[in-house]
Amino acid sequence: MKRRISFQGEPGAFSQVAAYRLAGADCVPIPMQSFEDVFLSVQNGKCQGAAIPIENTLHGSVHENYDLLLKYDLTIRGETLVRIVHNLIAPPGVRFAQIQRVYSHPVALNQCRRFFEENPQIEKTVYYDTAGSVKMVMETPPGNAGAIASAEASRIYGARILKKSIEDDRANYTRFFLLEKPKSRTRTPELQGASRFKTSLVFSTRNMPGALFRSLSAFALRDLNLTKIESRPLRGKPWEYLFYLDFIGHLEETAPRNALGHLAEVADMLRILGCYPVGR
Amino acid sequence: MKRRISFQGEPGAFSQVAAYRLAGADCVPIPMQSFEDVFLSVQNGKCQGAAIPIENTLHGSVHENYDLLLKYDLTIRGETLVRIVHNLIAPPGVRFAQIQRVYSHPVALNQCRRFFEENPQIEKTVYYDTAGSVKMVMETPPGNAGAIASAEASRIYGARILKKSIEDDRANYTRFFLLEKPKSRTRTPELQGASRFKTSLVFSTRNMPGALFRSLSAFALRDLNLTKIESRPLRGKPWEYLFYLDFIGHLEETAPRNALGHLAEVADMLRILGCYPVGR
Repeated sequence: MKRRISFQGEPGAFSQVAAYRLAGADCVPIPMQSFEDVFLSVQNGKCQGAAIPIENTLHGSVHENYDLLLKYDLTIRGETLVRIVHNLIAPPGVRFAQIQRVYSHPVALNQCRRFFEENPQIEKTVYYDTAGSVKMVMETPPGNAGAIASAEASRIYGARILKKSIEDDRANYTRFFLLEKPKSRTRTPELQGASRFKTSLVFSTRNMPGALFRSLSAFALRDLNLTKIESRPLRGKPWEYLFYLDFIGHLEETAPRNALGHLAEVADMLRILGCYPVGR
Repeated sequence: MKRRISFQGEPGAFSQVAAYRLAGADCVPIPMQSFEDVFLSVQNGKCQGAAIPIENTLHGSVHENYDLLLKYDLTIRGETLVRIVHNLIAPPGVRFAQIQRVYSHPVALNQCRRFFEENPQIEKTVYYDTAGSVKMVMETPPGNAGAIASAEASRIYGARILKKSIEDDRANYTRFFLLEKPKSRTRTPELQGASRFKTSLVFSTRNMPGALFRSLSAFALRDLNLTKIESRPLRGKPWEYLFYLDFIGHLEETAPRNALGHLAEVADMLRILGCYPVGR
């Protein structure tokens, strides 16, 4: 049976590209309206996995998904880095000079600021999804509207690319996670000789001077390399924070195991979110 | 001459409430369309200060403003914590049963999820501003639309509050900064006997294991209390980060001064964003 992999957005979304990369070309990507729907689809077994964006090199973290990782009991099984290329897309026959309004997701609009500065006659308009904005301008064409989305979205909806790669910064990558239900049989991927692994976790500290420093010492004292740390507000405790942290290492290796034992001593709360091969 | 204090949003925005608190009841709040406009208005001298939201206890940091603090050379002169109370607001004569659609800023809509779950007949619709959504439903009343905003916004536009305090969580506060142009004469506020001060800064580390740990040791070894740390992507260097950090202490005290000297040794880049009395 082919694996159903849920993602947020319309067909043609960058998350769909990530789903194929993470779960293989023979998986069946299933579009969902919200990130919460995506998590629920795996939790309730309707999908066997999910592809979610977690951070972008320009925009930063997708905080809603960090919060949902804590709310739902899913495991990170893989990561991949997708280069984001934004294109100005319009229905066939619409010329660039006719475009008065461009729809896209706010993140995509923000990543094409220079394009809008150079074309002040074009009004940017927020839409819920990049690929969805292509679908919309194709279905209800006023003849003067365009969308910003992937080449994949243009192809799927039979639109035309008017301008390629209009993003401000080529160093524009999004990191996606593959999420699955935790399995009791094997909670961690096999330790393979050559591969490098990453472990993601979330913890909170007691509200005292030096608490974060003490927590990070668990990793620094063992020469473990942190690749990301992200703080989020702790609900119900104003001005206290949760920390999401990624480090290079496998749960079954000695140093990471000892570091997590050490962190558990100094943290108020600690949860492992997953252990997975370092993505490309 | 009365001080002009810029803020993002329409009259009645929570930022306007913050402006009065930060700059005094006799200041003149000046509404602006974007956060960038707010920063520019102080940079170019059209306003003497600005009130900007920097974090919310439920939603987290306002990352755009963290990025703008780095882009512009303004100084944080004060902070204040505003309790966020969201109200369902409609034009006079519109009854709750008639409401089919509610407009507000996405953050406000997100903070009233329970209200929308309990009232599935009401569609939530994204608008650029909370107070602006009240203005809009008052100016173009289809008779079935409401807005979510402050009591202040309802008063200003002559609307009515249909339901008070519909936010999910009462522990909903936003922290605002008062920004001014840095003055060469006195870059730091006076050290007063009884008051506590906070210092905000931004730094980047060399990309090596333990770099963040080393940076935080500058504070931990001097028992300085970190109240916030926030990571943001470093532009042009994918998967490297800037760190924004707040700690309790005044720049002219010995321990903070030594800590900053120590941090400068281990950081790639370091900039002080301001030193100001701890807010309430």
